[in-house]
Amino acid sequence: MRYPIPELKDLPADVRERIEAVQQKSGFVPNVFLAFAGRPAEFRAFFAYHDALMEKEGGLTKAEREMIVVATSAANDCQYCVVAHGAILRIRARNPRVADQVAVNYRKAEISPRQRAMLDFAMKVALDSARIGDEDFPPLRSHGFSDDDIWDIAAIAALFALSNRMANFTSMKPNDEFYLMGRVPK
Amino acid sequence: MRYPIPELKDLPADVRERIEAVQQKSGFVPNVFLAFAGRPAEFRAFFAYHDALMEKEGGLTKAEREMIVVATSAANDCQYCVVAHGAILRIRARNPRVADQVAVNYRKAEISPRQRAMLDFAMKVALDSARIGDEDFPPLRSHGFSDDDIWDIAAIAALFALSNRMANFTSMKPNDEFYLMGRVPK
Amino acid sequence: MRYPIPELKDLPADVRERIEAVQQKSGFVPNVFLAFAGRPAEFRAFFAYHDALMEKEGGLTKAEREMIVVATSAANDCQYCVVAHGAILRIRARNPRVADQVAVNYRKAEISPRQRAMLDFAMKVALDSARIGDEDFPPLRSHGFSDDDIWDIAAIAALFALSNRMANFTSMKPNDEFYLMGRVPK
Amino acid sequence: MRYPIPELKDLPADVRERIEAVQQKSGFVPNVFLAFAGRPAEFRAFFAYHDALMEKEGGLTKAEREMIVVATSAANDCQYCVVAHGAILRIRARNPRVADQVAVNYRKAEISPRQRAMLDFAMKVALDSARIGDEDFPPLRSHGFSDDDIWDIAAIAALFALSNRMANFTSMKPNDEFYLMGRVPK
Amino acid sequence: MRYPIPELKDLPADVRERIEAVQQKSGFVPNVFLAFAGRPAEFRAFFAYHDALMEKEGGLTKAEREMIVVATSAANDCQYCVVAHGAILRIRARNPRVADQVAVNYRKAEISPRQRAMLDFAMKVALDSARIGDEDFPPLRSHGFSDDDIWDIAAIAALFALSNRMANFTSMKPNDEFYLMGRVPK
Amino acid sequence: MRYPIPELKDLPADVRERIEAVQQKSGFVPNVFLAFAGRPAEFRAFFAYHDALMEKEGGLTKAEREMIVVATSAANDCQYCVVAHGAILRIRARNPRVADQVAVNYRKAEISPRQRAMLDFAMKVALDSARIGDEDFPPLRSHGFSDDDIWDIAAIAALFALSNRMANFTSMKPNDEFYLMGRVPK
Repeated sequence: MRYPIPELKDLPADVRERIEAVQQKSGFVPNVFLAFAGRPAEFRAFFAYHDALMEKEGGLTKAEREMIVVATSAANDCQYCVVAHGAILRIRARNPRVADQVAVNYRKAEISPRQRAMLDFAMKVALDSARIGDEDFPPLRSHGFSDDDIWDIAAIAALFALSNRMANFTSMKPNDEFYLMGRVPK
Repeated sequence: MRYPIPELKDLPADVRERIEAVQQKSGFVPNVFLAFAGRPAEFRAFFAYHDALMEKEGGLTKAEREMIVVATSAANDCQYCVVAHGAILRIRARNPRVADQVAVNYRKAEISPRQRAMLDFAMKVALDSARIGDEDFPPLRSHGFSDDDIWDIAAIAALFALSNRMANFTSMKPNDEFYLMGRVPK
Repeated sequence: MRYPIPELKDLPADVRERIEAVQQKSGFVPNVFLAFAGRPAEFRAFFAYHDALMEKEGGLTKAEREMIVVATSAANDCQYCVVAHGAILRIRARNPRVADQVAVNYRKAEISPRQRAMLDFAMKVALDSARIGDEDFPPLRSHGFSDDDIWDIAAIAALFALSNRMANFTSMKPNDEFYLMGRVPK
Repeated sequence: MRYPIPELKDLPADVRERIEAVQQKSGFVPNVFLAFAGRPAEFRAFFAYHDALMEKEGGLTKAEREMIVVATSAANDCQYCVVAHGAILRIRARNPRVADQVAVNYRKAEISPRQRAMLDFAMKVALDSARIGDEDFPPLRSHGFSDDDIWDIAAIAALFALSNRMANFTSMKPNDEFYLMGRVPK
Repeated sequence: MRYPIPELKDLPADVRERIEAVQQKSGFVPNVFLAFAGRPAEFRAFFAYHDALMEKEGGLTKAEREMIVVATSAANDCQYCVVAHGAILRIRARNPRVADQVAVNYRKAEISPRQRAMLDFAMKVALDSARIGDEDFPPLRSHGFSDDDIWDIAAIAALFALSNRMANFTSMKPNDEFYLMGRVPK
Repeated sequence: MRYPIPELKDLPADVRERIEAVQQKSGFVPNVFLAFAGRPAEFRAFFAYHDALMEKEGGLTKAEREMIVVATSAANDCQYCVVAHGAILRIRARNPRVADQVAVNYRKAEISPRQRAMLDFAMKVALDSARIGDEDFPPLRSHGFSDDDIWDIAAIAALFALSNRMANFTSMKPNDEFYLMGRVPK
C-alpha cells in the first residue's frame, strides 16, 4: 500500500464499527477497508455504493454480481479486485473453477448463455461505454433481464471502474486469506 | 435518457431536498440528479462521494478539480460530463476558453506546468491505471502536490470513471443551460 | 505556434489578398491562414482543396460538411479544428449545442439518422480506412447519399486528416473569437 | 475442445508413450497432450520445443520459466495456459499466491526486480516484438541475464505465443486438477 | 477502383496535359492520376500540394521524402501508396531492398540514424499527432534537420494521411508496372 | 543478427545436413536456418513444426499456406518473414504481385473470396485469438474448408506468431536473394 493505514482507534466510530463487523464476520479485514479508512467520507460513500449494488436482492444472483466484478476487474488488471472478488465468487457460485476462468477469458467460462450476455454487456460498460446504444438492450431483455437488472449490471461495472483504479493507484494487495477461499470443499 | 425520471413528489425526502436545493441555487436541475433519482441509495452514495472530492478544501483549487473531470471525461467520450463540468470549469477558472481546450487536448491548453502534470497523472488513472508505479509520484511532488493532493487527483479521475460510464449507459443529455454558462463576461 | 508568422507585407500578392478577404469578411484572421502563410505553395494548395470540398454545392449541406470536420478532428484531438470549425458548424446549423455534442460523442448528438450514417462513415475514413469495403456503400445510398456525396464525405475526412496533423504539428491555437461564435442568438 | 480426441490405442507409439508417461507422473493427462494428439507431427514438434525451453538447465530457474508463461499467456487471455502453468508455477516457486498475482498484473506481484525486468521483456516479445531494439538488452544484462538467458526469455514468450493461439483456437479446457495444485501446503 | 475513370478527352485541358506529361515521362499513367481526374479541382489541389513537398529542393533528399511516404503509408495499410512510392524510393535511393524493408518495419531498415529519427517523427505525425510536443524537435535538430526540413517531414506525413485515405476509399490499385521498377539493375 | 552464427563445421550432423540441403536446393542459406543453428534442439523442433504444416498435402495449396504466412507476418511487422515468404508466395502462386498486395492489405489483394475468408480467420488467430468462437467455423466450412484445413490455417498463423517474434528478437535480416525471387518471368 502506498498510503499509510490509520490505527483503528483513530477512526470515526462508524468506520471503525464497519471494520470490526467485517473482521468478526470474515475472520480478517480485507485490505480495501483499510485502504479507504484514512478517508472517512470516501469510505462511507464507497461502501454505501457497494452495498446498494452487491447486497441487494433482484434479478441478478449474488454470484452473478461477483462475476461482473471479476470479469471487469480482470480487464482493468486489478490484482486486489480479481483475487478478493474471485474468492467471493467461488463461494457464492459454489464453484471452485469459475472465478479463474472468468478472470482469464469469460467467453470460455462454464457459465450460462444468459451470464455470457450479461458479461458481454458489462465489458462494454467497462471498456467502451461511449458506444453503448439502444441496440444493446433487446438481447439482454431476451435473456430475461429487466431494465432494473440491466442498470445493476452497468452500475456494478461502473462502480468497479472506480474501485479498480483506486486499488491500482494505492497498490492495494489482496489479503493472503483470499487466495484459497472457496477452493477446497468443506 | 434511457430510464424514466421519477416525479419529485415520489422521491424520498432527502433526495427531493437535495434536488430542490440545486434547483434553487442553479436555476435548473442538472440531469445527473434526475438520472440517479430513481435509485435513492446510489443517488446518496454518488453525491456523497462527489461532494467529498469536489467541494473539499485542499491543495487543489476547485477549478483544478473540474479540469480533471473535463479531461478524463473527454477521454471517455462522456457528453454529459464534458458539457456540464466544462461549464463549471469555465466559471471556477474564470476563463471562457480553457474547458474547450482541455476537452480536446489538455496538452495544448492554457494551463500551468503544474496543472499539466496533474492532468498527465489523472489521465493515467483514467486510462492505464495498472501501469501506475512508484515512479509516478516524485514528479507530482516536485510540483508541490502533497500525498493527499495526489489521492484527490486519482480519486476524482476514478469517480468520473464511474460517472462517465453511468452517463453513457443512461444516455444522459446535458441541460441546455450548460452550453453557454461561463462563456459571456457578466 | 511553433513557426514564425510572416508579415503580411512580405507575402505573395495572392496569399495576402486571400488573408485580407477573410479578415474583411470575418473581422479577424483565423490562425490557420497565418500558419500556412510562410509556405505559399502549400497555402494555395490547401485552401484550394478546402474550398473545393467545403464551399461547393451538392447533396451535403454546409452544416453537414462542418459536422464531418468537427467529428473527425475531435477523433484526432485537434484543438484548432474542433474549436474553429465548431464555431462554423454552430452558425451553419443555427444550433448552439450541436458542435459540442459532436465533438465529444457524435453518436449522442441531436442529428438525423442520415447524419449519423454520414459520420459513422467519415470516422471509418479517419480512423480505419484500410477496412473500407464495398459493404460500406449501400447503407449510405439508402440514406439518399449519391456516389458524389459519398466521395465528399470521404474527401472531407481525408483533408482534415491532413489539416489536423498540421495543426497539431505547428501547435496552432484557435483564435479567441471562435469560442463564442454562434452560441448567443443575435 | 472443438476437435475430437483420438483414442490412445489409435496413436503412434511414441505419442502414446509420452502421454502414458505424463499420466503416470501427474496422475492425469493435461488436456494439451490430448489436443495435439490427433496431429502427431505437430505433437512431437511442440513438445520437443517445449522441453528444450522449459526443462533445460540455465540461468533461469524453472519457476522463472513458468512465470514467463503465466504472464504472457494472461496477456493473450489463454485460459488453459494460465490455469495449467499457474499450477506448475505455484509448485516450482513454492508460493501459493504468485501465479494469481502474475496472471492479473505482474507489475504488482511479489517477485524480484530481476524477475520484473525479465517479465517486462517477455511482455515486449509477446505484445510488441517489432519494437525490440538493442536498447532492451543492457538492462537485462545488468540483472545478470546472459545472452543465452535472454534468448530463453524471448523463446519461451514466442513458444507460448504459438501455444496460446492453439489453445484459444481449439478451445482447450484446463483439467480440473490444475485449479487446486500448489495451493495447499502438503 | 470504386469510381468510374473519365475519358481523357472529357477532362479539362490542364488535367489532361498533366496526365499526358506523366504518361510520356513514365510510359504509363499511375492510377492516382486517373482516380482524381473526375474531380478536377481536387486533382489540381492534390498534385500542387504533392509537387510542393515532393519535388522541392531542401535538406531532405528525394529518396528521404519517399521513405516518409512508404513508412507512413504502410502504417495506414495503403496498398497503392506503398507499392507505387516503394518503386520511386527504390529508384531514388538506388537500392532495391530499402522500400520493402521500410514498408514492413522501418526500425530494421538499412537506413542512417538520421533517417531513423526522421521516420520516428513522421510516424508520430501519422499516428499520434496530438502528442507532438516541443521535446520532439531537439533530437531532429541534432541530426542536422532545419526547422524547414522538419516542416517538410511533417507535411509529407500529413499529405499522405490524406492520400492514403483517398486510395483506401476509392480502392485504388497499383499499376502492374510499379512492382518491378527499381528492382533489377539496368 | 543479434546472436553469433555458429560455423557449419561445429553443428550437429543433422542440423548441418539440413542446412547443406537447403543451400543445394536454393543456392543460398536463408538466414532463419543460421539464426536457429546455435540452438540445435529448437532448430529441430522449429523446422519439424514448419515442415509438418508448410510441406504437407491437404485442402490448402502451398501458395495459400504462404499467403497466411505473409499476411500474419506483416501484421506482426516481421521483416524477415514478409520478405522471405513473400518470395516463396510469388513462386508458388506464380504471381509477381500478390505477395506485396497481401503484405500491405490482404483485403485488397487479387485473391479469391475463399482465400479472403481464410486470411480473415488467420488474422483473428494472429491478433485476437481469445475471441475465436464457434461462429467462426461455419463461414470457413461454407468455402469448402474441412476441419483439418481450418486447423492448418490456425496452426500456420500460430507457428508464425512464434517465428515472427524470434525474427524480431534476433533482428534476423532477409537474404538479398529473396527480394527479386519470383518477380521476373523466367
